[in-house]
Amino acid sequence: MSLIVVGSMAFDAIETPFGKSDKIVGGAATYISWSASNFTNPIYQISVVGGDFPGEELDMLSKRGVNLEGVQIKKDKKSFFWSGRYHMDMNSRDTLETQLNVLGEFEPVVPDSCQDADILLLGNLSPAVQLSVVAQMKKRPKLVVLDTMNFWMETALDDLEKVLSKIDVLLVNDSEARQLSGQYSLVRAAKDILKMGPRYLIIKKGEHGALLFHKDHVFFAPALPLEDVFDPTGAGDTFAGGFAGYLDSTKDFSFEGMKSAIIVGSAIASFCVEKFGTTRLKELNRNDIDERIQEFVDLVNFEISLVSK
Amino acid sequence: MSLIVVGSMAFDAIETPFGKSDKIVGGAATYISWSASNFTNPIYQISVVGGDFPGEELDMLSKRGVNLEGVQIKKDKKSFFWSGRYHMDMNSRDTLETQLNVLGEFEPVVPDSCQDADILLLGNLSPAVQLSVVAQMKKRPKLVVLDTMNFWMETALDDLEKVLSKIDVLLVNDSEARQLSGQYSLVRAAKDILKMGPRYLIIKKGEHGALLFHKDHVFFAPALPLEDVFDPTGAGDTFAGGFAGYLDSTKDFSFEGMKSAIIVGSAIASFCVEKFGTTRLKELNRNDIDERIQEFVDLVNFEISLVSK
Repeated sequence: MSLIVVGSMAFDAIETPFGKSDKIVGGAATYISWSASNFTNPIYQISVVGGDFPGEELDMLSKRGVNLEGVQIKKDKKSFFWSGRYHMDMNSRDTLETQLNVLGEFEPVVPDSCQDADILLLGNLSPAVQLSVVAQMKKRPKLVVLDTMNFWMETALDDLEKVLSKIDVLLVNDSEARQLSGQYSLVRAAKDILKMGPRYLIIKKGEHGALLFHKDHVFFAPALPLEDVFDPTGAGDTFAGGFAGYLDSTKDFSFEGMKSAIIVGSAIASFCVEKFGTTRLKELNRNDIDERIQEFVDLVNFEISLVSK
Repeated sequence: MSLIVVGSMAFDAIETPFGKSDKIVGGAATYISWSASNFTNPIYQISVVGGDFPGEELDMLSKRGVNLEGVQIKKDKKSFFWSGRYHMDMNSRDTLETQLNVLGEFEPVVPDSCQDADILLLGNLSPAVQLSVVAQMKKRPKLVVLDTMNFWMETALDDLEKVLSKIDVLLVNDSEARQLSGQYSLVRAAKDILKMGPRYLIIKKGEHGALLFHKDHVFFAPALPLEDVFDPTGAGDTFAGGFAGYLDSTKDFSFEGMKSAIIVGSAIASFCVEKFGTTRLKELNRNDIDERIQEFVDLVNFEISLVSK
C-alpha cells in the first residue's frame, strides 16, 4: 500500500484568542503526512522547501515512514510563509501576511519510485500544479483526492475545472461548495459539483461536521464538541490525511469505506486543534486515536423504534 | 399518558426568499400540538386567542386529540400577531411587526382535568407566565420541559433563573446558550447551564443539528440536509412537540430515551420547513414520519474497526 501526498511545507505564525505562536512549521503536506502516517506507509511526499526549513522536521517525517525523495530543497531560498489571525468563532480568519517564496515557482516532479501508488492526494495548491502531477502519473492511481480553496475558484477556474474532471474525491468547505456551484443549498451544490467530475464530494463545515455526497447518498459526520479550539490551523489537512491514510490501509473505496474514513479523519482533526501547529499530532498514539473514534461512535449512536407499528 | 402544552396561538405573516405568506395561523402551541399529536393524546393545551382566531383551526386540533379547555377565547380582542422576514441563510430573521394583543395580558389557568399529566411543556413565553403554570401544578409532573429565548434573558433574567431551577429539560439555540452562560464554547456553556437547574440541555443549531447534554454525556443529532428550506417558522416548536410527544408515548426519560426523542423531533421539524406555516404538518401520516426517521438513521450510520488492533 502507498499514498502520494502533494502539498506545501511552510512556516506559519498564528494568532488566536488563546495565544500567539512563534514562526512554526506548517503547510498542508506536513499536516497531511503526520496524520496519514498513523495508518499507512510508505507515504511519498512531493513538495518544496527553502534552505531555512529545519532538517530535524524532515528527519521526524522520515522516521514516520514518509519518503522525502520528492521534496525539493532550494538551499538559497526561503520557505513559504503564512501568518494569520483567528476570531472567536474560529471559522473565520484574516491573512496577515503571505510570502510565497519557493512555492511561487514550484514545479513538482513525481519520483519513479511512487508510480505504483494506490492513492494520490493533491493538497491545496494551484490547479496547474495539481494538473502537472496528474499528468506525470504513468498509471492512474486507484483513487485521486483533491483539496482546493476559494482563491483558485476566483483566479484559476478553467484549470480547476480541468483537474476536477480527473479526480475521484473533492474536499471543500461549505462556502467553497456554494461558490463553486452558485447554489446556496448544500444539497443542490453537491448535485452540481458531482457533475463536474468527482464521484465523491466531502463538504467540511468546521465545528458543524462534514457531509459526504455520492450519487443520491448522503452521510453526515459530526465534529466532536470541544471545550476549546485552541488553533484550527491545519485541521482540514489533518482531516484529509487521516481520511486518505485510513483508506490506503483498508483499500475499501466504496461509500461505506469512505464513511469510516471520514470519521477517522474527523477524529484526528479533533486532536490537531488542541495545540498550536503540529504539536498535538506529534504526541498521538493509536490508542489515543481509538479512544477518540469511540467518542464519535458514542456521540451519534442511538436506538429507535419506528412509530407506525 | 398525557402532555400539557403551554404556549402562544397566533397569526403570522412570513416573508422568505421563496415567497410571502398571507396572515396564517401559527404560534408555538399550535406547532407543538400538531407535532406532538402524532404520538400521544390527550394533549392539554393552555393558551389564549382573540375572537378573530378561526374556529375551524380549533376544531382541527380537537380532532387530533387536543383538549382545548385551557385555551381562553377573548371574544372582543385580537390574537397575537407576528410578522417577519428571513434571509437566505434562514438562520437569521428580522421581526417586522409584533402585536402582543391578548398575549400581553395572558394569565394561564391550569384546568383540573390535566393535573395528572406526566409531561409539562412550557413553550416560549415570559418566565413569569411559565412560573405561574408551574405553581398551579398540584403534583410536579414527571418531566418539565422549557423553551425560552434571548428576549427573556435580556428583560426577565431573574424570573428566568427561577423557572430554570424548577425544570428538567431546557431547549435553547446556540446563540441563546452562549448568551445565557456567557461562554462561547458550547461545551462550556452547557456545563454552566446544567448548574442552573435543568438535568438535560438541548442546544438547537438549526441546519447544523442539535446537541443534547446530560451530566458528562453528549449526543449529537444531525439535521437532514434539505434541497430547500422553504419556511423555518415553527421548526423549533415542531421539534419540541415531537420530542415531548414521543417521550410521552415511551415514558423513557433516560438519556437513551431523550436521544431517540430528539431524532423524532428533528424528523418532524424537517417536514415543517417544507411549506409555509403548519401546512406540511397537517398532511403528515406515521408512515411519512417513519420514512424520515429512517433517513436520519441512514444519514449517521457507519461501521468502523478500531485502528490499534
